[in-house]
Amino acid sequence: MFLDRIDSPADLKALTRDELRTLSQEIRERLIDVCSRTGGHIGAGLGVVELTVALHAVFDTPRDQLVWDVGHQGYPHKLLTGRNGRLETLRQEGGLSGFLKRSESEYDAFGAGHAATSISAALGIAAGRDLQGEAFKVVAVLGDGALTSGLAYEGLNNAGHSGRDLVVILNDNEMSIAPNVGAISKYLTSVQRNPLYNRIRGRIGEVLEGHNVLNSLVRKWEESVKSFLTPGVLFEELGFRYFGPIDGHDLNSLVETLGAVRAMTGPRLVHVITQKGRGFPAGEHGEKWHALPPGHDPATGKQRKASTANANYTTVFGTGLGELMTERADIVAITAAMPSGTGTSVVTRQHPTRFFDVGIAEAHAVTFAAGMATRGVRPVVAIYSTFLQRAYDSIIHDVALQHLPVTFCLDRAGLVGEDGETHMGLYDIAYLLAVPGVTVTAPRNATEMLGLLRTAVDADGPFSIRYPRDTAPDVPPTMAQVEAVPYGTWEVPRHGSEIAILAVGTMVAPALEAAAILAREGFNPTVVNCRFLKPYDSLTLSTILAEHRQLLVVEEGTVVNGFGAYLASVVERLEPSVRVVAHGVPDRIIPAASRARQLSLCGLDANGIAERVRALHESEAVAG
Amino acid sequence: MFLDRIDSPADLKALTRDELRTLSQEIRERLIDVCSRTGGHIGAGLGVVELTVALHAVFDTPRDQLVWDVGHQGYPHKLLTGRNGRLETLRQEGGLSGFLKRSESEYDAFGAGHAATSISAALGIAAGRDLQGEAFKVVAVLGDGALTSGLAYEGLNNAGHSGRDLVVILNDNEMSIAPNVGAISKYLTSVQRNPLYNRIRGRIGEVLEGHNVLNSLVRKWEESVKSFLTPGVLFEELGFRYFGPIDGHDLNSLVETLGAVRAMTGPRLVHVITQKGRGFPAGEHGEKWHALPPGHDPATGKQRKASTANANYTTVFGTGLGELMTERADIVAITAAMPSGTGTSVVTRQHPTRFFDVGIAEAHAVTFAAGMATRGVRPVVAIYSTFLQRAYDSIIHDVALQHLPVTFCLDRAGLVGEDGETHMGLYDIAYLLAVPGVTVTAPRNATEMLGLLRTAVDADGPFSIRYPRDTAPDVPPTMAQVEAVPYGTWEVPRHGSEIAILAVGTMVAPALEAAAILAREGFNPTVVNCRFLKPYDSLTLSTILAEHRQLLVVEEGTVVNGFGAYLASVVERLEPSVRVVAHGVPDRIIPAASRARQLSLCGLDANGIAERVRALHESEAVAG
Repeated sequence: MFLDRIDSPADLKALTRDELRTLSQEIRERLIDVCSRTGGHIGAGLGVVELTVALHAVFDTPRDQLVWDVGHQGYPHKLLTGRNGRLETLRQEGGLSGFLKRSESEYDAFGAGHAATSISAALGIAAGRDLQGEAFKVVAVLGDGALTSGLAYEGLNNAGHSGRDLVVILNDNEMSIAPNVGAISKYLTSVQRNPLYNRIRGRIGEVLEGHNVLNSLVRKWEESVKSFLTPGVLFEELGFRYFGPIDGHDLNSLVETLGAVRAMTGPRLVHVITQKGRGFPAGEHGEKWHALPPGHDPATGKQRKASTANANYTTVFGTGLGELMTERADIVAITAAMPSGTGTSVVTRQHPTRFFDVGIAEAHAVTFAAGMATRGVRPVVAIYSTFLQRAYDSIIHDVALQHLPVTFCLDRAGLVGEDGETHMGLYDIAYLLAVPGVTVTAPRNATEMLGLLRTAVDADGPFSIRYPRDTAPDVPPTMAQVEAVPYGTWEVPRHGSEIAILAVGTMVAPALEAAAILAREGFNPTVVNCRFLKPYDSLTLSTILAEHRQLLVVEEGTVVNGFGAYLASVVERLEPSVRVVAHGVPDRIIPAASRARQLSLCGLDANGIAERVRALHESEAVAG
Repeated sequence: MFLDRIDSPADLKALTRDELRTLSQEIRERLIDVCSRTGGHIGAGLGVVELTVALHAVFDTPRDQLVWDVGHQGYPHKLLTGRNGRLETLRQEGGLSGFLKRSESEYDAFGAGHAATSISAALGIAAGRDLQGEAFKVVAVLGDGALTSGLAYEGLNNAGHSGRDLVVILNDNEMSIAPNVGAISKYLTSVQRNPLYNRIRGRIGEVLEGHNVLNSLVRKWEESVKSFLTPGVLFEELGFRYFGPIDGHDLNSLVETLGAVRAMTGPRLVHVITQKGRGFPAGEHGEKWHALPPGHDPATGKQRKASTANANYTTVFGTGLGELMTERADIVAITAAMPSGTGTSVVTRQHPTRFFDVGIAEAHAVTFAAGMATRGVRPVVAIYSTFLQRAYDSIIHDVALQHLPVTFCLDRAGLVGEDGETHMGLYDIAYLLAVPGVTVTAPRNATEMLGLLRTAVDADGPFSIRYPRDTAPDVPPTMAQVEAVPYGTWEVPRHGSEIAILAVGTMVAPALEAAAILAREGFNPTVVNCRFLKPYDSLTLSTILAEHRQLLVVEEGTVVNGFGAYLASVVERLEPSVRVVAHGVPDRIIPAASRARQLSLCGLDANGIAERVRALHESEAVAG
């Protein structure tokens, strides 16, 4: 095994091309073996095995700075940079991150998790280098999907203008997570169909018709025109020197091209064609190989365990939205490169003209939705909580200021488990509560999520619904059987006294469990399902305030200025004698672990909630 | 006067070309006359007089949907759409908005204020139209500066792909607010220097040398090659049919081109060259004509009043930053198309290699800063509070998660006066407090702002400083004389008892005034300058808690989950018997008015604060 002898990229320099090829095969096998057991984003990594080997063989890492976009592609990079022995700990508590992380390795020049940050970061690194008179190379590696993001374009535009020594590797696997959308995708996938090229070709034909003497010269010229017109013209226009496209699985051309490019200066872009999931036995292409849950058979790629009886929120949401769109022709669905991740891929098949995948372009998704909403259309925007952070200004400026009826469905809200810190959905409650006129909700289960969706599409103004990356505690009926949740209402699933647990969304179930535990100890807490965070249910709240001395507000979001803080200020106004304690995710970065473990560490399971109630009771006893 | 007879765009249809030209002149005179008195963003409007006349003459507004980007360009549009008589109320309380606003006119198809939203919104409108089987035209008008924004690119990319009937007018005045930056700008400004065009031209010359018989054919072909290669190739590549460039002050070609373009379908882009500030007597070009404060002489363009004695925060900041950068070679400054607006234009002259204007690309600015920070550089990012909303994910994902030492200087934080709702800086406290590890500060005056800047560039991790669109209450010394504010400390400018007013930034001065008023009534409130919002000063806080029964937290930001809510949850933990009341900007959209008036309406002046203290005292008396 060559792989076992690679402690750092320096060891690659001693290997022949044939040995590098063998090493690549070993990396691929190791990745499949490990990811089949641990789960993880395997597809992107398998696609860049040769590219990663070539980059580390040619560049002088970690002195040369390698900035990986997203981080999905980073597994082979981890194998080559001293982390092979720990690969089994991938995405586990205390183990290797599923993405890139500066604190994990000096080879991870810049952390990653969200797409399209690499060019901007690399340009910053290059600018820092130039200011300090240092001499090293900076390489950003990004997927073609990232080019649908405005941030990548802002980075390209600034980098091209800067003239700085900077290499961008475009890893073009023609599909990002889902097949790419938008003009840039058409552009990249179609060299031959380039209209500019074809028009020039046509003109040449017309002009030179009958002038056979020029034929060979013109053919030659045509070739060179073709080479600089397609497909690099877009990048050349942005100030980059373009190289490619080259075969991303051909180590020879990778090493030679990268070697030549490394020796140059200025902004340059290398266009590499790769195959996502290459070498995975059960199939080499498809969104399903983007990421694996744990427990796959490495020989067949089949999942070993059956999934649990209850569906996850994502699936229920997609199915329910599809049904609602069948009922109502005025609803459209929008997603940002995540049709499968948000469960909306089912909608694209059922309602193709009312489904919009805009690419990795969250801000556009929201402003586009606002435009549609002005025409009486009811857009439902399905974006992960963590990615909606990219559309914050569009939410404020284009939706909320105009009070347009756009529904935001935030999947992966709360603690996201193995994806770790970059993907946490912990801030949405805080950042949405702050915006005037936005209805903020969180369902206790999948049935209520569907009910809130029904409420949302008839509501006035912006409306958000957050739900976790998890299995639902219930098996919901079909959308047709679900009624809208009455606007602005809470429900009280358990009536008690003294202390009320005000639970948000996912916290209702553990709050009820906690109440059951506490009941055996002689406590009798009330449990409230605060499904509407804003506006809150003022009627129910005043009843609760009249009957309780302490409120514990439990939410799966940052405790800093979440719903607990919001409600506390409300109660301060209404009934200052009632004490309100916020219990949420602590104000620090939460690393990867299982979701259950993260909830437990944050005290957001039944035991943690019960413990907080006991502590509250004691403090009250002391104070009293 | 033709202008007096224009009640709606329908009246334009009856005018001859000559009459439209005369009308344009009248509009220009009216704009200069009014804006000289009211102030406002006059430059962009003067540049698009003929374009606006032509658009309304050719298109069937309001049925055809006209989406103006930013809204700075919207004044002539207001004149032609029934708002001429109210132009004097521009940017005043109860008057016309300085931007576009759906609630103001059915001709304002989509609200605007921030740049680069128009294409996404127009595409949404077009998609809504197509879904409902309606037939009208949709036109987005955006400036060339907006093309530096990722959102514009996301919109173009999706619009080009969609094939929908949509017209984008590129109003190219070659300068947005400041001269544009980035490759896209170079691209637009240089038709003749287009490298692609020149290379093709060169090749043609080589190939055809000596073949004189082909000369006329080739010249003809060259012309047509030129026309489609330059400068439209970028847009053609994105799926648009390109028309232009045309002279934006030539009504004939405008009306004819727009007429022809209106009759077509599919995504098309019309490139119009205009001159910003055209017709303004004192000069036709320059950032200074972007916006006028009130009180200019329309004949000379000179400002009538001298500015006040105290400098505004913006100027002090720019000067101080420049001085600090002279002291310290490791500091760089970054702005997003706002060198003048953020006061940093002085830095670009003093430290050109350490100043980066990235264009209207806030997310890039922040991720770029994060990249630099990994190299030991200390980036200071100067962006208005309202525009930093666009970089929220970059702040979380690229800066905070990696705890990189990037300083954010938020100008225009709080109530922004006449710019109105789109430009309010009311959310930064809420959205930054929620992010782990970000130091959040607000100075009480310009001297303290400089002190905090000094603290920031030596601090560990991200650091934000917010200050208002206002004159400072002090005349600060030079940066060399300013000491760093001790990290995490408050100060207590007035020691009293019972009630403490905890004031944030701009609120310290009115809080002290309020205390003086209250002292005459027998109250003796303490006033605390909470210059560090996070981390708070735990030592000072515990002293305050020991000596007071009630805290009034006063801040110029949304009262929903601002510093008041944050501190309340802290106090709830430390000393639940002390009552904390948050007093900030109410949770609704705040319209344009003078800043002083807005502060007063929100109860954030001395009288308003005093009133809240009295009410608190009374409630305490009742409770006690």
